[in-house]
Amino acid sequence: MPIVYAAIVCGLIAVVYGIITSRQVMSASPGNERMQDIAAAIQEGARAYLGRQYRTIAIVGVVVALIVAYFLGLVSATGFLIGAILSGITGFIGMNVSVKANVRTAEAARTSLQGGLTMAFRSGAITGMLVAGLGLLSIAGFFWYLTGPAGHAPNDRIVIDSLVALAFGASLISIFARLGGGIFTKAADVGADLVGKVEAGIPEDDPRNPATIADNVGDNVGDCAGMAADLFETYVVTLGVTMVSIALLVKADAADLLKLMTLPMLVGGVCIITSIIGTYMVRLGSGQSIMGALYKGFWTTVILSIPAIYFATQYVLGDMHTVIGGAAFLDAATPGLTPEAVAGTGASFTGMALFWCMMIGLALTGALVWITEYYTGTNYRPVRSIAKASETGHGTNVIQGLAVSLESPALPTIVISVAVIATYQLAGVIGIAFGATAMLALAGMVVALDAYGPVTDNAGGIAEMAGLPDDVRHRTDALDAVGNTTKAVTKGYAIGSAALAALVLFGAYTTDLTEFFPNLAVDFSLSNPYVIVGLLLGALLPFSFGAFGMTAVGRAAGSVVEDVRAQFRDDPGIMAGTSRPNYARTVDLVTKAAIKEMIVPSLLPVLAPIAVYFIITAVAGQASGFAALGALLLGVIVSGLFVAISMTSGGGAWDNAKKYIEDGNHGGKGSEAHKAAVTGDTVGDPYKDTAGPAVNPMIKITNIVALLLLAALAAH
Amino acid sequence: MPIVYAAIVCGLIAVVYGIITSRQVMSASPGNERMQDIAAAIQEGARAYLGRQYRTIAIVGVVVALIVAYFLGLVSATGFLIGAILSGITGFIGMNVSVKANVRTAEAARTSLQGGLTMAFRSGAITGMLVAGLGLLSIAGFFWYLTGPAGHAPNDRIVIDSLVALAFGASLISIFARLGGGIFTKAADVGADLVGKVEAGIPEDDPRNPATIADNVGDNVGDCAGMAADLFETYVVTLGVTMVSIALLVKADAADLLKLMTLPMLVGGVCIITSIIGTYMVRLGSGQSIMGALYKGFWTTVILSIPAIYFATQYVLGDMHTVIGGAAFLDAATPGLTPEAVAGTGASFTGMALFWCMMIGLALTGALVWITEYYTGTNYRPVRSIAKASETGHGTNVIQGLAVSLESPALPTIVISVAVIATYQLAGVIGIAFGATAMLALAGMVVALDAYGPVTDNAGGIAEMAGLPDDVRHRTDALDAVGNTTKAVTKGYAIGSAALAALVLFGAYTTDLTEFFPNLAVDFSLSNPYVIVGLLLGALLPFSFGAFGMTAVGRAAGSVVEDVRAQFRDDPGIMAGTSRPNYARTVDLVTKAAIKEMIVPSLLPVLAPIAVYFIITAVAGQASGFAALGALLLGVIVSGLFVAISMTSGGGAWDNAKKYIEDGNHGGKGSEAHKAAVTGDTVGDPYKDTAGPAVNPMIKITNIVALLLLAALAAH
Repeated sequence: MPIVYAAIVCGLIAVVYGIITSRQVMSASPGNERMQDIAAAIQEGARAYLGRQYRTIAIVGVVVALIVAYFLGLVSATGFLIGAILSGITGFIGMNVSVKANVRTAEAARTSLQGGLTMAFRSGAITGMLVAGLGLLSIAGFFWYLTGPAGHAPNDRIVIDSLVALAFGASLISIFARLGGGIFTKAADVGADLVGKVEAGIPEDDPRNPATIADNVGDNVGDCAGMAADLFETYVVTLGVTMVSIALLVKADAADLLKLMTLPMLVGGVCIITSIIGTYMVRLGSGQSIMGALYKGFWTTVILSIPAIYFATQYVLGDMHTVIGGAAFLDAATPGLTPEAVAGTGASFTGMALFWCMMIGLALTGALVWITEYYTGTNYRPVRSIAKASETGHGTNVIQGLAVSLESPALPTIVISVAVIATYQLAGVIGIAFGATAMLALAGMVVALDAYGPVTDNAGGIAEMAGLPDDVRHRTDALDAVGNTTKAVTKGYAIGSAALAALVLFGAYTTDLTEFFPNLAVDFSLSNPYVIVGLLLGALLPFSFGAFGMTAVGRAAGSVVEDVRAQFRDDPGIMAGTSRPNYARTVDLVTKAAIKEMIVPSLLPVLAPIAVYFIITAVAGQASGFAALGALLLGVIVSGLFVAISMTSGGGAWDNAKKYIEDGNHGGKGSEAHKAAVTGDTVGDPYKDTAGPAVNPMIKITNIVALLLLAALAAH
Repeated sequence: MPIVYAAIVCGLIAVVYGIITSRQVMSASPGNERMQDIAAAIQEGARAYLGRQYRTIAIVGVVVALIVAYFLGLVSATGFLIGAILSGITGFIGMNVSVKANVRTAEAARTSLQGGLTMAFRSGAITGMLVAGLGLLSIAGFFWYLTGPAGHAPNDRIVIDSLVALAFGASLISIFARLGGGIFTKAADVGADLVGKVEAGIPEDDPRNPATIADNVGDNVGDCAGMAADLFETYVVTLGVTMVSIALLVKADAADLLKLMTLPMLVGGVCIITSIIGTYMVRLGSGQSIMGALYKGFWTTVILSIPAIYFATQYVLGDMHTVIGGAAFLDAATPGLTPEAVAGTGASFTGMALFWCMMIGLALTGALVWITEYYTGTNYRPVRSIAKASETGHGTNVIQGLAVSLESPALPTIVISVAVIATYQLAGVIGIAFGATAMLALAGMVVALDAYGPVTDNAGGIAEMAGLPDDVRHRTDALDAVGNTTKAVTKGYAIGSAALAALVLFGAYTTDLTEFFPNLAVDFSLSNPYVIVGLLLGALLPFSFGAFGMTAVGRAAGSVVEDVRAQFRDDPGIMAGTSRPNYARTVDLVTKAAIKEMIVPSLLPVLAPIAVYFIITAVAGQASGFAALGALLLGVIVSGLFVAISMTSGGGAWDNAKKYIEDGNHGGKGSEAHKAAVTGDTVGDPYKDTAGPAVNPMIKITNIVALLLLAALAAH
């Protein structure tokens, strides 16, 4: 049986798991009528927002699809549409599951912590498995069609371009979803907090706050749908670029190449199975540690994945010690194969080397999880230092939070650097690619851990609004605090894998360049000033992008505050609790603001590489243009890694410092320290949920646009 | 007359200007007895701090001098000591002038705004001219000795190493001074604000606040002494690296080389004269615009510098159209001269080309000044958007401030990129170097604009504490608000020139490498993963360094808050105004904290390049080690540029948003918006005065250490 069928079967298993688990979730009690009313309002808002967001994105998508069709042909345009549509569907399903699971989690949390955890985690697992499963199905199905019925060689240009176009579709949708959802969720959250907690002195999720439904809608459209689209994109890009880099760099005959190109898909497939097994291990122990329960699932998946990956590799390659793509296959006379490209493939590598690269990928994932927990968990120095600094006021809270934020990229950068060097020494650029693939193979489990967070956050909101007993809220709060850490984990994981993927994408860029423009001597040396300028302009992008995101949230949150103030002023019955606020008006306001604000920054990474190439080419010639563009791709990752990690870890730390104080430390709720911590949390919100995570798809888009630009320039 | 004498004469003129203007300042009335008492307390604190700081730095300095002597010989060690000692002296004189001018400015402001402005600006001009004058004297004097009495050829290794060592001395002292002073000033400022304005509800500089003297001491040791040492370093490094790059890259006979190497010094010299003339143009017009008055001086200097630079270039080179270092001089067979190094010198350049490069340097300075004013001035969108966001609370103030901070590097990066490309196209790396030299030639004027700020800040404090009439405080406040912008300008200017200087330093690094290790093929291409790892680790440094700075200020400010709270608690007479707080205790506490906290982060950029080289060499061989080290040098500037500009512009914008509200907008003093703006100002303080500006010397140190490491490795 061709290996690609096995990958497709694993993808289908993920979908079946999703359907079965959905039924389990749906069969649980949705609580009393009041709870269902609230849940319905959230559902309605979330669907309305997502519908409008997708309609807007669809316009951009159709335009881009036409451009892709014009420059690269119909097959690539089809790839683009598959990636785009499935990315959208993933987000849509993720949102739909979570708006149904939230109320059921609240209901289950009435009985026990385990009940709430199970319900929330199951719904997260559905999203997780669909992200991985649909991602795998899209790549494997498309690849099967191209190399099977369509009859193309695995390293045919049309296969490569189509895989890149597929990744582009996923990335383009996901940046809109991440950013639009991120702006929505944080504008509503910040606005609700400012006017509710700070001004009116009412607790979070108080039903008298007109912004409270919008806040809960935001959890679903941003933290759930946006995140799912983002991770779908990461999955598709990582597997896709691994396959593309094999096609471009490894010199082997078509049959061997085909085998090697299916390996990433099979690894993705077997890890879906280990992830599904892992989900059944998520159970509270005697210590009632929620993080411990989640870790049980995570580590089960990691440990089972070790033999699974080994046997998958052995199954595909046969002998693990045969040299692949090595000296025997390398032919320095092959047109377009420069010495650098040869070096980039690794002098030679074996199946064992690839296996070890994937083990390094798993180890890097574990290390990033641990580091993120250290920076965002309530048990360690960083969060506690922010909590302590809150005692001396808003200013010191924010200063210490920024200090933690700036500090947090250090360890991730070092472990990523070690992983890059180790995988490269084992198997060159292909080794780096397989390291990234192994990381993403765990996506099903990692997304499950993340997607459970917004469900518990919503459940807490519903419990509060429906007036459920305090212990329900305590349980959902405990679940939610861990959710802050797991959310930060996913982001660190996504950006860490993006660093590896970006290096592989750069390898693909240089290889394409020598292939398309064999007579152009492009100097990528650091002593070329166009390289420096490219690095600087690339490094600028995450900063400017972050500025757009922060400004958008600030502006939209400001209008939420004004809307809520107006509602309180026009109808004093709202605060008295006698009349119901106009929730829909606030939801509608945030919807419009988020859609409006997401357009320009999302286009920045699409247009910037094109602009830089054409401007530098006009000034200094095509070789300089390509050098600057290549350097821009690395500049984006060099600063993007730091911007993204510092924002997501810093934001998570701020949030949990507030929760740590709310647990009764440094004066507890209502103290001056708590007020300062609320300010820090507010600042951290757009850091961690809007600007920071959107850097990940941004990095990929920049790289993919460059690859497509090359292909388009070569074709025309 | 040898040109170097002309440069020395110009340096001496600057010193004479300093002495004469000092006498003018000292002859002014120091005010009444109460004012003199306060000023004396500030002087005492500042001298005590600077004494202790220099004793600590001296220990490090002696150790490093011995290391330099061991590896590179006594002449280089002498160069190191000259740089180090003069950097220290510059800071010391700057502080001494400003602690005497502060009280005289307060006294002069009793009469008129013009009186206050003249006094404060004169004292700033003394510091400015001494920075440029002593910087020029140190380089010109040392170069004269080396190429004259000592009889070395201008491109002799000993001359190059000694100039680099001189720069190293200046850089090493200045990073300690910038960081130590920065921690002192902001710990005191933040602590005083938190406990005074926020907790006790007393105004800034209220004499009942025990931290108020420490706050004023900080202005002198941080914003004045630290800044002066930093700009001295920037001056020496920029001129030094320009001369070194000429010696390394330009292939000409000794006499021509000597002439070309003296050109940067003569340009520095003539611009001292134009700067001195500019200082006399600083006068308020009919509109009473302070910024306008300062601009008159600045633009006078810029415009006069255009012909001055032209005639200096013509005087040195004779015919402006003769091709220098061009094809006629290039000998591809010269050992160690790789094709890249030839390309790096520019195919050929003329005196006219160098002149245009220097004009680009002046234009870049003007552009950076304008951009910084836009981002930090109260008349433009950024500051006003922060002020507006303050209406909805602390959280939105900080979010908008961070948004402005993230946005602010965009325009500077673009104009710097344009300048790099334009100067490179005119005259290669030498062109970039001359662009940077022209920027720094204006240092006398730019430092004058900056150093006037802390004097007016202090004057305001003295006026408040001495109970002078309100209109005096209004005048000093108006002067101080402009000071926030000019302070940000200097930092943007320093970091902008650092970006150019870092490219030149990288050119020196690669040239040295081929000279010292001609048989080692070092691959600086972006497709080398060790280059990527080097870029990532280099980009990490400014983030980690920033984290250290922010943490240090947060921690030290926290202990100030606790000390002040204890003083209020132990003696209720302080708040009642019947007993005097123990100012000295707070000064002493901040002194100890600042000295302790500055050590580790200052050593980070010294040790990181050495560690990266040895670790990567151990893992992957010397060629990879050098590649990673080279990439690290560019990684530092790539992220350092953004970290530094975002912090200094963001911090300045926060500070002026507060002042804009205090001017009666958005509710004015005491409103909720004002409270939020105070939080933003507090957060911005360590951003703009501690972490941000210290990135500039950090970038240089990293680069210089790499050059010295190369020389040491080659010699041993």
